[in-house]
Amino acid sequence: MKVVAHYDNLESQQFDGGPVKGVTGRIAIGQADGAPNFCMRIFTIAPGGHTPRHAHDWEHEILVHSGSGQVLKAGQWTDVSGGSVVFVPGNEEHQFRNNSDQDLVFACLIPKGAPEL
Amino acid sequence: MKVVAHYDNLESQQFDGGPVKGVTGRIAIGQADGAPNFCMRIFTIAPGGHTPRHAHDWEHEILVHSGSGQVLKAGQWTDVSGGSVVFVPGNEEHQFRNNSDQDLVFACLIPKGAPEL
Repeated sequence: MKVVAHYDNLESQQFDGGPVKGVTGRIAIGQADGAPNFCMRIFTIAPGGHTPRHAHDWEHEILVHSGSGQVLKAGQWTDVSGGSVVFVPGNEEHQFRNNSDQDLVFACLIPKGAPEL
Repeated sequence: MKVVAHYDNLESQQFDGGPVKGVTGRIAIGQADGAPNFCMRIFTIAPGGHTPRHAHDWEHEILVHSGSGQVLKAGQWTDVSGGSVVFVPGNEEHQFRNNSDQDLVFACLIPKGAPEL
């Protein structure tokens, strides 16, 4: 069993530039842990930041941990905040943005075989 | 895309009796949503409550959303709280308990084929 007291203790990677702004990513549970079927990442989007607007053939299962922001759903920005749940099926365009003044943090899970970070 | 503003809006099921005490479960993303590979459930453990002490052949990937409590890791109770990450490999004994005075809430993901709730 792996227990991490807080995701802040996990190694992080910054994404900034091109289609991404102000995003920090962490692999929480992945292949290095022996996870056989799916991978949990934790993303932090700084105020004013955003993930890329894109689509890919794997799904996302997302729980917003803290903060607030918006997700692009069928071309419309939809509010999310701590406790929100988002399912992005494969091949559906999506993007997250932080239009608040505090960090937006969410867990985003992907199936095995998709790039972990 | 499925967006649920807060997990409180999801249908819930109570588990109380025998090896379980004070647990509320919700399927956040599952087969009914067309999730092809894994399932997200949200569990709330009331103060003094606990999940069963058990093992099974599928894994858990867990993010503690809020509150605090403990997880049984190799026979020892280990503290967790909002932001903690827990990976329970298949066939490893585990249990969660809430030894605090506030609800403990966590997302617990399982692979396709395991019972969703």
